[in-house]
Amino acid sequence: MTKKPRSLDLTQVTEWDDGRLRRKDDFLAAEEPLEIRVGEHPLSVTMRTPGNDLELAAGFLFTEGLVQRREQILRLESCTPEDVADRGNVVQATLAPEATPDFEKMRRHFFAASSCGICGKASIDAVRSRLLRPPNPDFRVSSDLLVGLPGALRSSQDVFERTGGLHAAALFDAAGALLVLREDIGRHNAVDKVIGWALREGRLPLSESVLLVSGRGGFEIVQKAIVGGVPVVASVSAPSSLAVQLARELRLTLIGFLRGRRFVTYAGDDRVVQSAPARRS
Amino acid sequence: MTKKPRSLDLTQVTEWDDGRLRRKDDFLAAEEPLEIRVGEHPLSVTMRTPGNDLELAAGFLFTEGLVQRREQILRLESCTPEDVADRGNVVQATLAPEATPDFEKMRRHFFAASSCGICGKASIDAVRSRLLRPPNPDFRVSSDLLVGLPGALRSSQDVFERTGGLHAAALFDAAGALLVLREDIGRHNAVDKVIGWALREGRLPLSESVLLVSGRGGFEIVQKAIVGGVPVVASVSAPSSLAVQLARELRLTLIGFLRGRRFVTYAGDDRVVQSAPARRS
Repeated sequence: MTKKPRSLDLTQVTEWDDGRLRRKDDFLAAEEPLEIRVGEHPLSVTMRTPGNDLELAAGFLFTEGLVQRREQILRLESCTPEDVADRGNVVQATLAPEATPDFEKMRRHFFAASSCGICGKASIDAVRSRLLRPPNPDFRVSSDLLVGLPGALRSSQDVFERTGGLHAAALFDAAGALLVLREDIGRHNAVDKVIGWALREGRLPLSESVLLVSGRGGFEIVQKAIVGGVPVVASVSAPSSLAVQLARELRLTLIGFLRGRRFVTYAGDDRVVQSAPARRS
Repeated sequence: MTKKPRSLDLTQVTEWDDGRLRRKDDFLAAEEPLEIRVGEHPLSVTMRTPGNDLELAAGFLFTEGLVQRREQILRLESCTPEDVADRGNVVQATLAPEATPDFEKMRRHFFAASSCGICGKASIDAVRSRLLRPPNPDFRVSSDLLVGLPGALRSSQDVFERTGGLHAAALFDAAGALLVLREDIGRHNAVDKVIGWALREGRLPLSESVLLVSGRGGFEIVQKAIVGGVPVVASVSAPSSLAVQLARELRLTLIGFLRGRRFVTYAGDDRVVQSAPARRS
């Protein structure tokens, strides 16, 4: 018998199918809070699907701008070991002194930021103020490669097929090969797990890769991709207005509605190369 | 010419359709941050789709447990008027003295809560500690009524059809009539807008109604429904494990995969009444 992954729960449900009732077993996507702590300070609590928690924490610390390099994370550990039955829902990080946040200053900064008004432009300015470079301008991806990605994602997806309840984020290299796939009940968590994986593997910046997300492309997804140096983000659904604005300002290629042999490019057209048209008889 | 709603943005995109490229105009779901302030204190910043901001703020204050009654919200206003071009992204609330949070205590409470461990059980305990009553045990809904709801939602949905980028939350009465429909880039925001509408209309608790959400049913959705007194929550996709646990403990009826003439009941079977089977020839 294979061990049930922590990302799944099994439960009894009632199915109603056009008048026929039956009791059956069903898999659910697990959802549990994860607290990320820096030293003694709780930094964030997020509802997430257990699994790859250290990647999630590393990705969060990096994409939210607390650390810029892998070496600034001195220690990263689950408060209860992952291999015991008891579930570890706290990840404790020890950061290099220059990366350890001044929690008092963070609080003041939040107050200051909000008193001068809050809007989409301020959100974009906040990303720009981190002096991130626009992702690799020379990266190119062909339309044929793009339309093959959702199929590659689906054939690798594990938990989603069984529960229908998880978001996926997957990273592909320039040849369309899958580098890593992570799933989570929260789309931004799935992206943090992918970026955290790359940080821990020493693969940042991800300047020769495409990030595919299963749902919509929102502001946070684009922001995290830019921080990771990803030049092309694709999703199977629609992006938001602010995601498109940010992608255009920071020169990231943003693709939506990637389904079948069709997609829509919302920003960064220049990285998309038209494949030679299929010969038609 | 009709005025463009604030919830939509129009932009130029490139469509690639099996080798054919064309530039076209496309609607995007608007995404902007909203800050909710109590007195001088920023309470929360959420990325949301502009529109119904006062409902969103009222719903948030209520479902997060700051206010228990409509009368405790003394004033609620957008910091810039909604009818001018300048976008109002701050809602300022003045609460009754007994509802105004002790921000220092909130901070201490957060530290205290996290130091005693964090897990799904603690999340459920936190909801239970608010002494919420299980929703109306006598409410019943028929299977035929349930399977008709997604169609009723779709025929009323406005922005979603044009952008594919928004979540919807809709409230139906015991006869299946649509009471209110709200859309947002964030599923929990759409639910807060619905509950906030009910609070402002004096319709709480919603003890004779069904809440339908367009995506998955997560912990937060079930939590907010319980606070609003909603006895039945249905979604077109899968719930999470923690949502099912909470629904079972607080005795809410939770339905998933409501598509076509099929659905799955994860909790609270007793409220679902089997309709007489359709006659087959």
